[in-house]
Amino acid sequence: MKPFLDKDFLLSGEIAPTLYHAYAEPMPIIDYHCHIPPKEIAENRSFQNLTEAWLEADHYKWRLMRSNGVPERLITGDASPFEKFQAFAQLMPKAIGNPMYHWVHLELRRYFQCQIPLSGETAQAVWDHANALLPTLRVRDMIRLSNVRVIITTDDPADSLEYHRALRDDPFCQGEKGVRVLPGFRPDKAVNIEKDGFPQYMETLENVWGQPIETVEDLKTCLSQRMDLFQSLGCKASDHGVDQVPFAPASPETVEAIFRKRRNGEPVSPLEAEQYQTALLLFLAEEYTRRGWVMELHYGVIRNTNAQAFRQLGPDTGFDCIRDIGSGRRLPLLLDRLAAENHLPKMVLFSLHPGDNEFLASLMGAFQGTEFPGKLQHGPAWWFNDSKSGMQAQLQSLANLSLLGNFIGMLTDSRSFLSYTRHEYFRRILCQYLGTLAENGEYPADFRLLGKLVQDICFRNAMHYFGLEE
Amino acid sequence: MKPFLDKDFLLSGEIAPTLYHAYAEPMPIIDYHCHIPPKEIAENRSFQNLTEAWLEADHYKWRLMRSNGVPERLITGDASPFEKFQAFAQLMPKAIGNPMYHWVHLELRRYFQCQIPLSGETAQAVWDHANALLPTLRVRDMIRLSNVRVIITTDDPADSLEYHRALRDDPFCQGEKGVRVLPGFRPDKAVNIEKDGFPQYMETLENVWGQPIETVEDLKTCLSQRMDLFQSLGCKASDHGVDQVPFAPASPETVEAIFRKRRNGEPVSPLEAEQYQTALLLFLAEEYTRRGWVMELHYGVIRNTNAQAFRQLGPDTGFDCIRDIGSGRRLPLLLDRLAAENHLPKMVLFSLHPGDNEFLASLMGAFQGTEFPGKLQHGPAWWFNDSKSGMQAQLQSLANLSLLGNFIGMLTDSRSFLSYTRHEYFRRILCQYLGTLAENGEYPADFRLLGKLVQDICFRNAMHYFGLEE
Amino acid sequence: MKPFLDKDFLLSGEIAPTLYHAYAEPMPIIDYHCHIPPKEIAENRSFQNLTEAWLEADHYKWRLMRSNGVPERLITGDASPFEKFQAFAQLMPKAIGNPMYHWVHLELRRYFQCQIPLSGETAQAVWDHANALLPTLRVRDMIRLSNVRVIITTDDPADSLEYHRALRDDPFCQGEKGVRVLPGFRPDKAVNIEKDGFPQYMETLENVWGQPIETVEDLKTCLSQRMDLFQSLGCKASDHGVDQVPFAPASPETVEAIFRKRRNGEPVSPLEAEQYQTALLLFLAEEYTRRGWVMELHYGVIRNTNAQAFRQLGPDTGFDCIRDIGSGRRLPLLLDRLAAENHLPKMVLFSLHPGDNEFLASLMGAFQGTEFPGKLQHGPAWWFNDSKSGMQAQLQSLANLSLLGNFIGMLTDSRSFLSYTRHEYFRRILCQYLGTLAENGEYPADFRLLGKLVQDICFRNAMHYFGLEE
Repeated sequence: MKPFLDKDFLLSGEIAPTLYHAYAEPMPIIDYHCHIPPKEIAENRSFQNLTEAWLEADHYKWRLMRSNGVPERLITGDASPFEKFQAFAQLMPKAIGNPMYHWVHLELRRYFQCQIPLSGETAQAVWDHANALLPTLRVRDMIRLSNVRVIITTDDPADSLEYHRALRDDPFCQGEKGVRVLPGFRPDKAVNIEKDGFPQYMETLENVWGQPIETVEDLKTCLSQRMDLFQSLGCKASDHGVDQVPFAPASPETVEAIFRKRRNGEPVSPLEAEQYQTALLLFLAEEYTRRGWVMELHYGVIRNTNAQAFRQLGPDTGFDCIRDIGSGRRLPLLLDRLAAENHLPKMVLFSLHPGDNEFLASLMGAFQGTEFPGKLQHGPAWWFNDSKSGMQAQLQSLANLSLLGNFIGMLTDSRSFLSYTRHEYFRRILCQYLGTLAENGEYPADFRLLGKLVQDICFRNAMHYFGLEE
Repeated sequence: MKPFLDKDFLLSGEIAPTLYHAYAEPMPIIDYHCHIPPKEIAENRSFQNLTEAWLEADHYKWRLMRSNGVPERLITGDASPFEKFQAFAQLMPKAIGNPMYHWVHLELRRYFQCQIPLSGETAQAVWDHANALLPTLRVRDMIRLSNVRVIITTDDPADSLEYHRALRDDPFCQGEKGVRVLPGFRPDKAVNIEKDGFPQYMETLENVWGQPIETVEDLKTCLSQRMDLFQSLGCKASDHGVDQVPFAPASPETVEAIFRKRRNGEPVSPLEAEQYQTALLLFLAEEYTRRGWVMELHYGVIRNTNAQAFRQLGPDTGFDCIRDIGSGRRLPLLLDRLAAENHLPKMVLFSLHPGDNEFLASLMGAFQGTEFPGKLQHGPAWWFNDSKSGMQAQLQSLANLSLLGNFIGMLTDSRSFLSYTRHEYFRRILCQYLGTLAENGEYPADFRLLGKLVQDICFRNAMHYFGLEE
Repeated sequence: MKPFLDKDFLLSGEIAPTLYHAYAEPMPIIDYHCHIPPKEIAENRSFQNLTEAWLEADHYKWRLMRSNGVPERLITGDASPFEKFQAFAQLMPKAIGNPMYHWVHLELRRYFQCQIPLSGETAQAVWDHANALLPTLRVRDMIRLSNVRVIITTDDPADSLEYHRALRDDPFCQGEKGVRVLPGFRPDKAVNIEKDGFPQYMETLENVWGQPIETVEDLKTCLSQRMDLFQSLGCKASDHGVDQVPFAPASPETVEAIFRKRRNGEPVSPLEAEQYQTALLLFLAEEYTRRGWVMELHYGVIRNTNAQAFRQLGPDTGFDCIRDIGSGRRLPLLLDRLAAENHLPKMVLFSLHPGDNEFLASLMGAFQGTEFPGKLQHGPAWWFNDSKSGMQAQLQSLANLSLLGNFIGMLTDSRSFLSYTRHEYFRRILCQYLGTLAENGEYPADFRLLGKLVQDICFRNAMHYFGLEE
């Protein structure tokens, strides 16, 4: 029997612990996709208490609280920070098997040296213990403690990138030990023409750009120039979140007419939306290819499933779910079109439906390229799949259908600076997966080979893939 | 190596066996969804032989017999009881890994103290052994032996509930040790307008109700008054079995016209059927909410796949299969509509497709409520998924995406009084799942926490969820 | 810790190793579906080097090479044999967890007694070692070494079957120890009316048959007579590969008009194609039933996903993927129609989507027959699923939902004579699955029962199912 969360957490046998401690653990982190605000790094934000650091922006935790019948007042409402923390702490014993149970306790141990299992009864003790340490744990401390080398944030094309600019010149980000904080280009608001705020967003873009956006061509020019700005600050990656992958090619005239209609505030049909989205994605992918950027594509979501909650709390508050409809022919046709036009960028594919693992791994095998080993990637287990079994399933599917050795590994996808332990979580699971294969005689027990695989997947592959060596 | 089906069947390590024997095993059973006839409890039915008790109504066993090429005469035909038993016994050794292999031997051990592995060669010995004991094993003996506290049956709105009435006043159901037998409201025949017998069923309802049902309003009034009757006999739950979740809202006039057409014996289109079903489900859900009933929703089935067999043997004879088409947007939209109107009852969601586990667990997370911790539930592994690996997958998905500690646990869904061992089967799998997490250091090895989780999931949660404490 | 690929590879515990070594290993192989050219058996082809034997026709290996960024010159191009081998060897260490890693090393050990783990560094040594032995390893040596009893190839109706005729009279195929090489009837080109070469293929058939094919009736007569020829050479099985299962019944006149249109080189709509395919499949299934042939049905593929690669390299070159759309109602309706007309042949169902396992296993349970135990079969894990975890999932689904003891077991589906080790791979996984059940007390540890199950699944069931005893 292993003690709770000891140094060999998730590791067993003769090989996996060594793989983790000797090879994985020392590797720096490249967090190539996350949602942390660069402002908070630039300003080196501090936190008053654990609720600020943990519960303020984490819709994973909010969902669990709602699952436990906690009223909104104690989640997003005006309850006191400790009341909220107490309500969260109370559900923890019920969260057995949930990745949150592990994340919470990893974070307590790694950042606060706190070994107490969190529950309603221990809430006060944990609160006191952690809050006492928080003054010494500002954002940059958390990043440094986590041995992070690169952070790629998620930024809107309209963003001024002022904080990235500030960070570029900040000693925190410079030198050999510096943490590079790079913008990530996420033009969802320009792509999702059917969403409510689209016309307003065009105006925002116009204001930022300083020129009118009256045609699709204008928009493309604008986006292209924004990409130049992103690139000047080290951008290496774009990111797209679509509910469903679009593929409905249409003539430029048709796309133009759709754009004009929507620009004027009129609604568009689902087909029209898809035609516009297709045109824009094809354009953007071509731009990314030209710039050598990576294109991340997230799909398979139903967002804001609960309309009442959406009206009250807005997007990204914990009311999304997995989409129970596959991409069908759309994603294969999109890749095919890009390949036919030699505009297929390096791509990382993510679906929120865990049943898509093998589909994606088999699909990308039909579109690999000679520019890079593992040009197309199946992204690590995403969001609702970001659990021990979800990661194991993704690793196994990838190993079965591709070359696991080319995998670019983990990201946090998080809004919190304490989430870097998700890399530790992933690395333990990876080492246990590889170690078990060797342990069982399914791969030579050769630490030179195994250690290299671990280091590549934990660090080097992402470094090369995103072109971060320069 | 463990002996076959010993006391630690499915249990290993230092924690799981204790969890099972000290916490799970003593818990009474709440069988909150089954298909046993209340008449047989009221009359305390006895069985002449094992074929009567086992093979008369169990389409799980019939399917396996057909898989073995057994002719219908030996399954549902006029062969002698022993011939049928022999044909079933013969396939058992081939059923390795099938839950039936475990159910059969658990039932032989728990009810008949018979340790013989069943096969063609041992059929006669098992037959003689079990039949000798059957006179002392009437229906109420089986229920008592199984430590059942509550049974919720499945009843049609047109049912007179005479046996529930009789049981209410029966000493067997009274007092602290009494077994409560409550009706469950299953209005499928009123919902499935497209099915053959719908017009006749309306007449049946009219006769029972004593008033004409000429409009949808009439039908609603009728159903509402039937619910009153059900409630007066302790009903706490409704149950719906739909092939596919409907969601196609239509105006009351449209729904009325569809109803009138079908009432007159004319067919309706698939869209019309869905419009009517949507209207009726929305109405019923509102009623359930008002009454505090739980709404169970089963979907994802193709029923009577084999039309020839359906014509010969009728429904529920072993010719259904998993539906290879998801709910798409329908289930999310149905829940959203109910939530928007504040008519979302406590719901238990079941899909027959095992690939829907994560979809359902993520979906329900967007609709939880403050009335109850775990207001929306993902039902335990259902029907074709009711196997060791099917249950493990459901538990893991639930743990990953929700709070396992709020789970209401197992039901039998059975037509047989010997199926209570399915609760034992589930509890062993649950304890092994939880025990292994603690054993591996993924949860504190704290029996106070773990034992409470086990008892809650095995008994207390269902007790509270269905409002059975009064 | 187990050494890499030792004699108990994939086996552990007290039961599985004995099951494998005493029961599975000695069983001859029935390879009831493969793509090896009968010509090469007839001519007893020899191989100059490992690239010829391994890389010439294996699109599994090509895919992995492309995943590693290897340029086409080193895959299908004019690079030297050793350059190609070197490029393949280099990726091997990255293929941890991939079935290819196991296949390659099993083949090196079983046919070449070569224990060296393949990598870029060892490529030359392995190359020299294996090439030195190749002169003594002609096609028939490989077959004999593998203890193959029956090979069913994949042949077009237009094929002259000259090599099967030659083999029938060849001592290699005669006598008790002879290897029976039987044709398999695969009329895909006659079914897939929408594909480019259909009109040309009709001409080919006409030429072979010596009569004009102007109507669907002509085509049916032609195919029926070709089946007679196949049958005269021992054919027992047909095989169909459809992207999607068709089911769109239409009148004979409609089907005739579709055929005439396409015969004249005009395109047909997707619905028309499906109507024609449905008619032809129904006809063929009836013919197979009459002849007692097995019908294998493979679906769930997107073929030639990458159009550019298809234009350059043609079909079956490694650019297919899993289809992310289920069969919906089509496959159930197809089986239902065949059952209603008493034309349902013995069938083996394969879907490329691993999420279809339980659907297929539940579906076939609704259509079993008394002609044969396990008349309908869920085929072994196919193509992208042909991995350790893929096989485990198929075995578990089958065990859960059917009678594993009736399973007809493994095939190679391969274009290579070195792929018989896939049977060894399957047998080890099977024995470990069954052994673990007994080890854990989920089945009696009775070697008489377990050994019979193993032998049946490895050999006897297929022997009976395909009618190969005569």
